[in-house]
Amino acid sequence: MKVLMVHAHPEPHSFCAALKNQAVATLTAQGHEVCVSDLYAMQFNPVATAGDFLQRENPEYLNYALEQRSAFAAGKLCAEIQTEINKVIDAELLIFSFPIYWMSMPAIMKGWIDRVFVSGLFYGGKRIYAKGGMQGKQALVCATLGGRDYMFGDKGIHGSLHGPTGMLRSLLQGSLGYVGMEVFEPFIGYHVPYITAEARVQLLSDWQQALLELDKRPVMQMPLLSDYDDTFRAR
Amino acid sequence: MKVLMVHAHPEPHSFCAALKNQAVATLTAQGHEVCVSDLYAMQFNPVATAGDFLQRENPEYLNYALEQRSAFAAGKLCAEIQTEINKVIDAELLIFSFPIYWMSMPAIMKGWIDRVFVSGLFYGGKRIYAKGGMQGKQALVCATLGGRDYMFGDKGIHGSLHGPTGMLRSLLQGSLGYVGMEVFEPFIGYHVPYITAEARVQLLSDWQQALLELDKRPVMQMPLLSDYDDTFRAR
Repeated sequence: MKVLMVHAHPEPHSFCAALKNQAVATLTAQGHEVCVSDLYAMQFNPVATAGDFLQRENPEYLNYALEQRSAFAAGKLCAEIQTEINKVIDAELLIFSFPIYWMSMPAIMKGWIDRVFVSGLFYGGKRIYAKGGMQGKQALVCATLGGRDYMFGDKGIHGSLHGPTGMLRSLLQGSLGYVGMEVFEPFIGYHVPYITAEARVQLLSDWQQALLELDKRPVMQMPLLSDYDDTFRAR
Repeated sequence: MKVLMVHAHPEPHSFCAALKNQAVATLTAQGHEVCVSDLYAMQFNPVATAGDFLQRENPEYLNYALEQRSAFAAGKLCAEIQTEINKVIDAELLIFSFPIYWMSMPAIMKGWIDRVFVSGLFYGGKRIYAKGGMQGKQALVCATLGGRDYMFGDKGIHGSLHGPTGMLRSLLQGSLGYVGMEVFEPFIGYHVPYITAEARVQLLSDWQQALLELDKRPVMQMPLLSDYDDTFRAR
């Protein structure tokens, strides 16, 4: 299997980076081919601008999604974006590895999605969810945070982190599911700056096990297109 | 009243920018003092890095939140961040104006939060929600998107955009509410790239009216600290 890991943490020796390294080692040992986009190491630019297009459909007024569509079709996306798109096309499984900042991704990873998930290829017209451009691919989120597990969920002060009403819904459903990927239940490392070395070793082991048993991991239910008409109104 | 508008759109002539300009004109005409952080015009850097701190608590290992806390206390945050913090401290109302990218903020605005909402000032220890560092301030989100209104909400294909289970919950509750701000129901402009000029004029007028009647606008319910013990476990 070909795997793309998109990793974003400003500290190369973070526990989050250790989880990333664990994934690379585990998957490689299984015979999978792993490509890593380490966004901080690459100094990836997360800001969507007119400079993303080597040729413009409308040089007077920037409609970012329309320019994505025509630049992708014409092969006129800037090299930084086209390179990442090629990695996604090549991958069967995408793993997103990041620390949770403000209940979502760090900006550098949000911008990777803003710029790489181009209209026309990833989605477009009626091609979303089960008909999305990335159908057939799988996605797995591996995130670390400072908060404790009991602060989340039905009784948690912050409400759900993942699941149908979770804080991460804009990523899990609104981005990964939206483009047609099959999205696994995320792997979350809670309270990592404060836990013991033993607890960290256990988390690394849990993560390894999760990767070895990925075929048994639950996937998230996405909206069913059959429940909506062809303008996406509820039937 | 002192108002800080944080605006992020790559096209200066966008409808989103027109909404921003409408807000500046309306609020200024009412006698309010409006400061605008136009993130694209400022070329704001959204990437949280070690360079954000002029002095490090631990130069060997970057724990971003801990470095925020000590650098803020020591007055050693980089100028770009300290300038934005000063604007927030000065403001009574913050307005966030942006196009919805992937069911959330563009990366440049997400990074403004990642870097500006520093630990120690905005939150810390037990100081979240009603005890958050920004209590007494109000926040209003004004967002535009391509999707139609019926695609959201209980029967919408994507589920809720705002409200307790909405796609924007990581911003509205997890960021703005978390730091203690009173968060108004957001103002959303649906389907803006495709609507008529008349519909756009109507939206601008609705937005103006919303600003003139802000004191009547519903605010979002945040978690009540009294429902949790001092470790934030449900009582």
